[in-house]
Amino acid sequence: MENVWDDTFFMKKALAEAQLALEKDEVPVGVVIVANNSIIARAHNLTEALTDVTAHAEMQGITAAANAIGGKYLQGCSMYVTLEPCSMCAGALYWSQISRVVFAADDPKRGYRQHGTPLHPKTEVVSGVMAEESRELLLRFFKEKRD
Amino acid sequence: MENVWDDTFFMKKALAEAQLALEKDEVPVGVVIVANNSIIARAHNLTEALTDVTAHAEMQGITAAANAIGGKYLQGCSMYVTLEPCSMCAGALYWSQISRVVFAADDPKRGYRQHGTPLHPKTEVVSGVMAEESRELLLRFFKEKRD
Repeated sequence: MENVWDDTFFMKKALAEAQLALEKDEVPVGVVIVANNSIIARAHNLTEALTDVTAHAEMQGITAAANAIGGKYLQGCSMYVTLEPCSMCAGALYWSQISRVVFAADDPKRGYRQHGTPLHPKTEVVSGVMAEESRELLLRFFKEKRD
Repeated sequence: MENVWDDTFFMKKALAEAQLALEKDEVPVGVVIVANNSIIARAHNLTEALTDVTAHAEMQGITAAANAIGGKYLQGCSMYVTLEPCSMCAGALYWSQISRVVFAADDPKRGYRQHGTPLHPKTEVVSGVMAEESRELLLRFFKEKRD
């Protein structure tokens, strides 16, 4: 039997969060955090609405997930995020000790891998899941900004 | 005439914040953010109280300062922090475009300089201001934890 709770399934949920950001005129990045095949946190970028550079989807997701499980460490959890995390978010993921990070599109300019910012050594990373769909959302946002 | 609003003056205020963290059994790190010689934000580490790895003093300080000035960029502001920021906080400082970061003690294990995580190219950095006082607070905390 096919596993319906695969990485594509959850990345679609993260993309739905990114879509919500787009509708609010925010850079469209979305996150879901999953434990035991259940979504325990959803978030999207709100830096403009909150006037706060720290309000990236990942940061809000980590706070919400810790709140959901009643503990600050996210061992056993997976984050699905539509864009490669920046150094700030990678640093937060490091402290969270999250077990798995799955991201869609690369961020060759501001992604954590450019800067060499480490995730936790026990964190597994998967990239490229639905990358094209995420890139399309981001390109649409930046095209609308230019026009 | 002597300038009373020098780096030592404001670092003492950040150390007072670190002391508040210590009294709450949190890793003692404190922050003040200054604009035009006025303190516009104060914060101390609350990761245990908030059960949130993102609740470092710097992160809260950036959010509070943005709230105080009604804009998300902290150009023209200085952060005084009692410990070298980690990669997460350095990433947040990068996004904030803060003009100046003054820190007390080095963090050779988790400091952003170890990882090469960049601050904003326009951010001036000063280190070592009241480093000994900060280290003493941190050592007292970790000694109490061990005993």
